[in-house]
Amino acid sequence: MEKTQIAALGEFGLIEHLTKQLTLRQPSSQKGVGDDAAVINPAKLGKDARLLMTTDLLLEGIHFNLEYVPLKHLGYKAAVVNFSDIYAMNGTPTQITVSLGLSARFALEDVEELYAGIRLACERYGVDLVGGDTSASMTGLTISITCIGMAADKDIVYRNGAKNNDLICVSGNLGTAYMGLQLLERERLAYNGTSVNGSTIDAFEGREYLLERQLKPEARRDIVEQLRKAGIKPTAMMDVSDGLSSEIMHICHQSKCGCAIYEDKLPIDYQAAVLAEEMNLNIVTCALNGGEDYELLFTCDIKDYEKLVPLDDVYIIGHITQPEYGTLLIGRNGEELSLQAQGWQAFKQE
Amino acid sequence: MEKTQIAALGEFGLIEHLTKQLTLRQPSSQKGVGDDAAVINPAKLGKDARLLMTTDLLLEGIHFNLEYVPLKHLGYKAAVVNFSDIYAMNGTPTQITVSLGLSARFALEDVEELYAGIRLACERYGVDLVGGDTSASMTGLTISITCIGMAADKDIVYRNGAKNNDLICVSGNLGTAYMGLQLLERERLAYNGTSVNGSTIDAFEGREYLLERQLKPEARRDIVEQLRKAGIKPTAMMDVSDGLSSEIMHICHQSKCGCAIYEDKLPIDYQAAVLAEEMNLNIVTCALNGGEDYELLFTCDIKDYEKLVPLDDVYIIGHITQPEYGTLLIGRNGEELSLQAQGWQAFKQE
Repeated sequence: MEKTQIAALGEFGLIEHLTKQLTLRQPSSQKGVGDDAAVINPAKLGKDARLLMTTDLLLEGIHFNLEYVPLKHLGYKAAVVNFSDIYAMNGTPTQITVSLGLSARFALEDVEELYAGIRLACERYGVDLVGGDTSASMTGLTISITCIGMAADKDIVYRNGAKNNDLICVSGNLGTAYMGLQLLERERLAYNGTSVNGSTIDAFEGREYLLERQLKPEARRDIVEQLRKAGIKPTAMMDVSDGLSSEIMHICHQSKCGCAIYEDKLPIDYQAAVLAEEMNLNIVTCALNGGEDYELLFTCDIKDYEKLVPLDDVYIIGHITQPEYGTLLIGRNGEELSLQAQGWQAFKQE
Repeated sequence: MEKTQIAALGEFGLIEHLTKQLTLRQPSSQKGVGDDAAVINPAKLGKDARLLMTTDLLLEGIHFNLEYVPLKHLGYKAAVVNFSDIYAMNGTPTQITVSLGLSARFALEDVEELYAGIRLACERYGVDLVGGDTSASMTGLTISITCIGMAADKDIVYRNGAKNNDLICVSGNLGTAYMGLQLLERERLAYNGTSVNGSTIDAFEGREYLLERQLKPEARRDIVEQLRKAGIKPTAMMDVSDGLSSEIMHICHQSKCGCAIYEDKLPIDYQAAVLAEEMNLNIVTCALNGGEDYELLFTCDIKDYEKLVPLDDVYIIGHITQPEYGTLLIGRNGEELSLQAQGWQAFKQE
C-alpha cells in the first residue's frame, strides 16, 4: 500500500489529523490542542498542589535507531521516560506536549504509528496530550516531549534529602535495558553482514524480556503507589536513566553525603546475566553503568526498614554514609571500589 | 582563541556551566534546574489562576540559517516566540524549559552565546528558566522550548470567541520580518557569489529595522498591558506567526464566522515597502502571508471602538462577518478576494 506524503496534508492538516481523536481525562485539563497555548486549572489539583515540569529531547541517531526500534514503541517510550521523571519526584503525570521534527522520508502512516504509541502511553498512565508543535526536519526524526505533573507540596521528594544511615533502595532490576540494546545491536550488525560472535537465527527467542526493557520500558508508578500505601516517604529519589553509578552520585552530591552500595545486593535479571556472559560483558558493570532502566532509586530513613521489606520488587542495595567515605561499591569479598559515573555520555570525546 | 569542546565537559558539566548563574524571579518558581523536574507553586498565582502551556521546536535548516543568524539572537528569538504565544492567550509567561540538540561543530562558547540570548529574553520578560535537556545531535542545532504562563480564568482569550460585527485589530506592522528575511537571503546569495539583482555592499544600511524584526522580534506584552488598562478584553486573539491570512482564517474557523479585511488598512512599514518594490515583491502579499511578525491579531466588540482608537500601535483592519460571507480581503477599489492561507508551509511539496 502506498504511503501518504505529509506534504499532501500540510502542517495544520497533519496536526488536525493526529489530534482529532484526543480526549481530555484529567480534570485539570481545561483546554487542549487548538489554541496558542493549553490551559491547565491548578485549582482542580487541590490547594496544596504543586506542578512538576520535565522535558526530554530524543534525536534519531543519538537516542534511537529506527533500524530496529518500531515507531509505536518509540512513541510509547518517549512519553514514558517523561512520566518516569514525574514519578521520581513522587508526583503524578497529568499533561504532555509533543513536538515532532519529521524529515521527508516519514509518511503520514509513520507518524500515526508514533502517535499511537504516545497515545497508548497516555491512556495507560492517565495523561492528557494537550499541545505540541510539528515541523519538517532536514534530517531524521526529532521528538521533544514536555510533561506536567502534580504532587502535594509535602509529598515531593527531591534529590537532596538523603541523610547518613539512610537505606538505599532500587526497584526492578538494573542493566537489563542495556543488555537488550546489546542484543539488538548484535543482531543489527549480523543482519547487515558484519560477522559477530554469537549471533544466531533465533537470537531473540526467550529473550523477549530484554527487548521489552529496551524498547518498551514502563515508568514505576506502582512503586510510588506502594510507597504511599506503606506510609513511606523517601528522603531522596530519582529515576535511573543514566545508570545507577551516575544517579547515586547525583544524590550523594546534592545531599552532601557518601554511600556504600553492595555488589551482591544489586538486582540483576537472569536473562541479562546469561547474555552478558555470552557476550563477554561484566554484568555488574552493565548494572552500574548501563542506561535506560527507568527504575526508581531512593533513600529511606532506617526506621522505615520494616515497612520496606514487604514491598514488591524493591531491593535494599546499600546505605548512605558520611561524605568523607566517598561513594563506594563494596565487592563480594568486602573490597571497596570508588563508583565511577560513566553513565550515558551524550557528548563522547571522539 | 581556541574554542572549548563540549565533549571536554560532558553533559552534566555543560548543564552545570550553563545554569549556574540562573536566578529564579517568579514567586511561583519553587525549584528550578537540578532535579528530575522543576516545581511550580500555582497557589502563588492567585486562586483563580490558570496555567498556560505552549511549546515550539526550532530546527536548523528549516527555521533558521546560521550563516546569518547570530546565536545570541537565535536564543532570544526562540524564547520570545514562546512568550508571544502566552501573551496571545492574554496571559503572562512565567517559566520555560530549554532543550538543545548540539552537533559536534558547536563549541561551549557557541552554546554560551545561545544561552546568553535566552537569558536576556528571560530577564526582559521576567521569565524563569527552570529546566531542560541537553544532548548531542547528529546534524545541526535543535532548540525546543516549552513555556508556562499564567492568567486569571476570566481573562483568558481563546481563538473561538469572535462574533459577528466584531472589529479586527492587529498590532505593529505586517510583512516586515519577512522582508528582513528576504534581505538576509539576498545578501547571503551575493556573499556566496551568486549574482543577485540589487545587491550592494551597503545593503543593510538604513535597514536595521527590517533585520531586527527578523532576527530579534519582541513579544507584544505592551499591547496586552494597554488592552488591560483600557478595560478591553478581546473576544478572540492569537499571535501572527504564520502570516495574517492564515491566522485570521484560524480565528474565523474556530469562531464559526467570516471576515472582511481591508487592504488599505493593513499596517505596512515604509522600509519594508521600499525593499519589496526594489525586489519586485507585492508588499500586500508579504503582509498577508509573510511569517514571523509575532504581532497580536485580535477581535473586539464594536462597543470598545472608542477605547481602541487611542491605543498606541493598534490598527483596526476589518470586521467579523456572518460565516456565509467567507474570509475576504477587500481591495483598494472595493473588489473582494478570498483570503488564502499560504502562511508558513513547514511541509512544502517537493
